[in-house]
Amino acid sequence: MNNITDFETVYLDEEKGALAIVDQTKLPNKIEMLYLTKAKEIWDAIYLLKVRGAPAIGVAAAIGIYVLVKDEQTDEMEKFQSKFHEVKEYLATSRPTAVNLFWALDRMEKVVANNCKGTVSEVIELLHKEALKIREEDIEVCRKIGEYALTLVKPGDGLLTHCNAGRLATVKYGTATAPMYLGYEKGYDFHIFVDETRPLLQGARLTAFELKNAGLDVTLICDNMSGMVMKKGLVQAVFVGCDRVAANGDTANKIGTSVVAAVAKYYDVPFYVCAPTSTIDMTLASGSEIPIEERSEDEITEMWYEKRMAPEEVNVFNPCFDVTDHELITGIVTEYGVVKAPYEESLKRIFENKI
Amino acid sequence: MNNITDFETVYLDEEKGALAIVDQTKLPNKIEMLYLTKAKEIWDAIYLLKVRGAPAIGVAAAIGIYVLVKDEQTDEMEKFQSKFHEVKEYLATSRPTAVNLFWALDRMEKVVANNCKGTVSEVIELLHKEALKIREEDIEVCRKIGEYALTLVKPGDGLLTHCNAGRLATVKYGTATAPMYLGYEKGYDFHIFVDETRPLLQGARLTAFELKNAGLDVTLICDNMSGMVMKKGLVQAVFVGCDRVAANGDTANKIGTSVVAAVAKYYDVPFYVCAPTSTIDMTLASGSEIPIEERSEDEITEMWYEKRMAPEEVNVFNPCFDVTDHELITGIVTEYGVVKAPYEESLKRIFENKI
Repeated sequence: MNNITDFETVYLDEEKGALAIVDQTKLPNKIEMLYLTKAKEIWDAIYLLKVRGAPAIGVAAAIGIYVLVKDEQTDEMEKFQSKFHEVKEYLATSRPTAVNLFWALDRMEKVVANNCKGTVSEVIELLHKEALKIREEDIEVCRKIGEYALTLVKPGDGLLTHCNAGRLATVKYGTATAPMYLGYEKGYDFHIFVDETRPLLQGARLTAFELKNAGLDVTLICDNMSGMVMKKGLVQAVFVGCDRVAANGDTANKIGTSVVAAVAKYYDVPFYVCAPTSTIDMTLASGSEIPIEERSEDEITEMWYEKRMAPEEVNVFNPCFDVTDHELITGIVTEYGVVKAPYEESLKRIFENKI
Repeated sequence: MNNITDFETVYLDEEKGALAIVDQTKLPNKIEMLYLTKAKEIWDAIYLLKVRGAPAIGVAAAIGIYVLVKDEQTDEMEKFQSKFHEVKEYLATSRPTAVNLFWALDRMEKVVANNCKGTVSEVIELLHKEALKIREEDIEVCRKIGEYALTLVKPGDGLLTHCNAGRLATVKYGTATAPMYLGYEKGYDFHIFVDETRPLLQGARLTAFELKNAGLDVTLICDNMSGMVMKKGLVQAVFVGCDRVAANGDTANKIGTSVVAAVAKYYDVPFYVCAPTSTIDMTLASGSEIPIEERSEDEITEMWYEKRMAPEEVNVFNPCFDVTDHELITGIVTEYGVVKAPYEESLKRIFENKI
């Protein structure tokens, strides 16, 4: 199993009754599948980034909560609901920024609420269906994002992406990588620059791995090289994913995204956010309301290294995400089309038409 | 020997007849002095970044060439000159971007040319003096840059720097760090953010080390976090060093400098380049003429790591420097004062008044 197409990022293993994920902390050196059946295992898998990427976290949470309640030994709906809610609240604490986690858990809970007149086993069957549906929808959503994004570029373009909003962050295609994969199928001959994305190196370990593995033309750079490649005219568009988009278009995504956006603005390179509507949080007026996860200092000073690379006891700031101002964003690509500023209005229209 | 003040970055060890440097590739884990007496050793020390930073490279080259010719067994001036020139040409191939290397070697060769009517031993004695003078001047130049730079900020400010333009890149004080050290002496209470500076981590290994060691308030961040800290209003000014400034103010410095500059522009944070006049190359009209060193792919994919962090055979682009457009630079701080745009005129005036 050495090829990206030989394994799935996240799925329900019916036989094992388990949430199956590829352990992304082991990539690109080792492809190892994990089969998770316990609440703590699933919580840890999300917290420790064994499964990561906003859409994949949503799918993992949906399948995960199904796995955790499917064998509940009770016929009393109230007890089941209470158990479901308890598991949901627990999983919801695993990571704060990506809204898909809450979106997927809410969607699953709605299945319970809407069918509480039926039997527990009927509800469990409906949860099974809903989890699989969330997963299937993700594939379709990413494909549509790819098709819309592809209209924004032309064959031969240089494209830059940051972090991993790829196949490994979703079920298939990815979000930011969807136009790259679809373009590749059409012979578009893109040249793709991938930011390594410190400190966790999702760009180097995951995006470069999956794109190269699929045969695309990939060049790995450090995060601080985006200015150089844009100044040289090697980049015609930037595509990034997102963890949460506020109603005004402000976008939380992997730390460094706002840096790429500011640099793109200076060099007049269009900057696109690829956002399934599940990642858009219309309850938040602006990006300042998005909670930003901070992670351990070790990720910067020691992780991956043979020995510590910073002086002992130095202060370290390690925010996992940053917020890109909506004014830096040329367009937001959703499964319903590309929207542009003013985002308050264009995003609202997307949700109105969708419902 | 654990304190930055316990050792010198670069000096002439008269007793050993050697160029003495601290091996910067071993920092911050180990403080190891090297005593170099052979041409290949000195070339390697520069090429392998055991001594690095434009001013320190200049001083090392001056002391190095003195060490390499001081025992020449000839009374014939022509033979000596030819030998000197050969050594100079060899050392000049060690790194292409920092102009101080060529500036220092040229200055030493001028001593030979101007005194070729004297004896070889007289010339060697003059080279000895010149090398020490170049070193002493560096201390004074950095101190003056620090004093001028200090007028641009106020107590309590947050300052951000990229790479190492510190004590370890010079003889003392540094260039970008000179206002930080001088401000610290005056109780200015700066909060300093240091970019780790991939791939070679000069920020994490060297700048964070030397500033923390000297007692300053330092916070280490990844290169892609500058947007976040500026958006939060934590940075009132950026100070960086430089490897070569063209006549129009375009500045080659460590890869990523142009990214910090574009981000600073977006967030309205003043961006200052600290440049000894030895680093300003008035023979180049613009930054596009500055040769940019590219280094090995391993520096990005493998160096420092326990195991490779990128897929095998992926393309990698590893430019060591980038050029920051002069329009992104708020001011250039030289030992003769702070100059502003239009740089063609202001830099020219500096050189006219200097001579």
